[in-house]
Amino acid sequence: MAEFVIGVDVGGTNTKFGIVDRRGTILEQSRKLTNEPGDVEGFIEDLYNKLMPMVEKAGGIGNIKGMGVGAPNGNYYSGSIEYAPNLQWKGIIPFAKLLTDKFGIPVKLTNDANAAAMGEMMYGCAKGMKHFITITLGTGVGSGIVIDGKIVLGHDGFAGELGHTIIRPGGRLHKGTGARGSLEAYASATGVRETAIELLNENPQEKSLLRNYSLNDLTSETVYQCAIKGDDIANRIFKFTGQILGEALANFVMFSSPEAIVLFGGLTKAGDLIMSPTRKAMEENLIQVFRDKVKLMFSNLKEADAAILGASALVWD
Amino acid sequence: MAEFVIGVDVGGTNTKFGIVDRRGTILEQSRKLTNEPGDVEGFIEDLYNKLMPMVEKAGGIGNIKGMGVGAPNGNYYSGSIEYAPNLQWKGIIPFAKLLTDKFGIPVKLTNDANAAAMGEMMYGCAKGMKHFITITLGTGVGSGIVIDGKIVLGHDGFAGELGHTIIRPGGRLHKGTGARGSLEAYASATGVRETAIELLNENPQEKSLLRNYSLNDLTSETVYQCAIKGDDIANRIFKFTGQILGEALANFVMFSSPEAIVLFGGLTKAGDLIMSPTRKAMEENLIQVFRDKVKLMFSNLKEADAAILGASALVWD
Repeated sequence: MAEFVIGVDVGGTNTKFGIVDRRGTILEQSRKLTNEPGDVEGFIEDLYNKLMPMVEKAGGIGNIKGMGVGAPNGNYYSGSIEYAPNLQWKGIIPFAKLLTDKFGIPVKLTNDANAAAMGEMMYGCAKGMKHFITITLGTGVGSGIVIDGKIVLGHDGFAGELGHTIIRPGGRLHKGTGARGSLEAYASATGVRETAIELLNENPQEKSLLRNYSLNDLTSETVYQCAIKGDDIANRIFKFTGQILGEALANFVMFSSPEAIVLFGGLTKAGDLIMSPTRKAMEENLIQVFRDKVKLMFSNLKEADAAILGASALVWD
Repeated sequence: MAEFVIGVDVGGTNTKFGIVDRRGTILEQSRKLTNEPGDVEGFIEDLYNKLMPMVEKAGGIGNIKGMGVGAPNGNYYSGSIEYAPNLQWKGIIPFAKLLTDKFGIPVKLTNDANAAAMGEMMYGCAKGMKHFITITLGTGVGSGIVIDGKIVLGHDGFAGELGHTIIRPGGRLHKGTGARGSLEAYASATGVRETAIELLNENPQEKSLLRNYSLNDLTSETVYQCAIKGDDIANRIFKFTGQILGEALANFVMFSSPEAIVLFGGLTKAGDLIMSPTRKAMEENLIQVFRDKVKLMFSNLKEADAAILGASALVWD
């Protein structure tokens, strides 16, 4: 009986991969650059050469039940990566088929945010839950929605784009989509940086540790460093971000009434600075029947492992 | 074999009920006042006395597979009506159990908006669809969400409160919930009336047929009558309402990626006056991958029948 699966997480910069057992133990893992070599065939050849020594150590390909892949714009139904703006591969890439042809094992593919939700359900803090939402607060804002124990894919496989829901009509421009006021324009690392620039510009007289940083170094990380040192503008940046995120979460709760919302990704490093205003705004915007019910929590999976675990979970499912 | 089911729709004013076969033919139907007599035991006694002659005509209770009930704040999991603000019965009413005890047949209960969605799926324009959302534009804004052919209930049975999602943060006060800027504050009959009052007050110099009506007669119906006569303010009211509704629908599409959104209820009588700005705003607020895909349509069920059909569909499911 096949005892292991391969988990692959294709990111904009790095692709992580590893061999995982059913309990979520990662036997071995590694990473490679996603855009090296540039074409998808070269990528798969390189991935094969890096993975096969690991597969041999796990007892050979006969011991591998299948491969799960999380990728930006990955479509579960078609097994394709479709028009991913952050990848060098353009158009529609039949990624699952190419991998099956190369490795000779079944391959399941979904988008990276859905894979993260699968990982939370099998190995993380949503273990045993049938209704929850994961929100990834990274460079962008991703989401995976689970209802009745299943990832919500929608009629075409593209459901769960909560980062693109409009939360401030006519608000901040999202340069990637052209939309105004989407959640991602505020509650991402990019959004926090923009909020920082806005607040510094709007309050030219006000002192702030943030003014010691060059525009290039003004990141969500530096805002956090200044906030824990008591910098007022830095603290207001997280309050503002949490306010908007919490309002958005309230809307999501009134859609699918989840038991929990699991937050994940770089911004969660800010801990209570982001959690506390988010929870407050969420509760304030819920109607009575939903109040004080939803568990709002940070993922407890190690970020390095979570992507591989999530992708691997697709195969066990 | 039981050939018929009973469908019951409990409304704020009237309760409609009828005997339905599997194809959706209503053998016979009637209605009674919901608040007469005032207590729930009296209501059930009265309903029993009115329904049993119909049941006899259908071949007796042995010929009835069960009863489906749609009711405000009806919870599918518990079979209870819980804290319904628009009903005289207060607290938690174990409605399904009371009906089973009286009629001796299985009873399934859900909220009225979910029942409407079931009706659309079995007998209406969502027939055969596995992913769609129904939005009821009546006195309030209700919603039923279907994913993978099943009503989304959430972990507690209260999912699908899309009328209470915030679409204009800090916007118009919803007197019932205290929330500001919820969809229901704008895209309901009540909301249209408020928009009318606002626009008339904001443009005191501008002539409008709407000024011929007393405040009491200023309804979504009179706004429609003036709009088709070419009244400019009346037309702007529908444009404004459609704009907000369309923005909200875009957010819902990016959540569950439905094949269709079915609009239902009094406001849909305005036809293209509401449909056209709604569709425009929805498309403008979607990211590329969802554009020109979602069917936006009006329900094709007769309003009088739809509530009974929807409730009855719960039993066949």
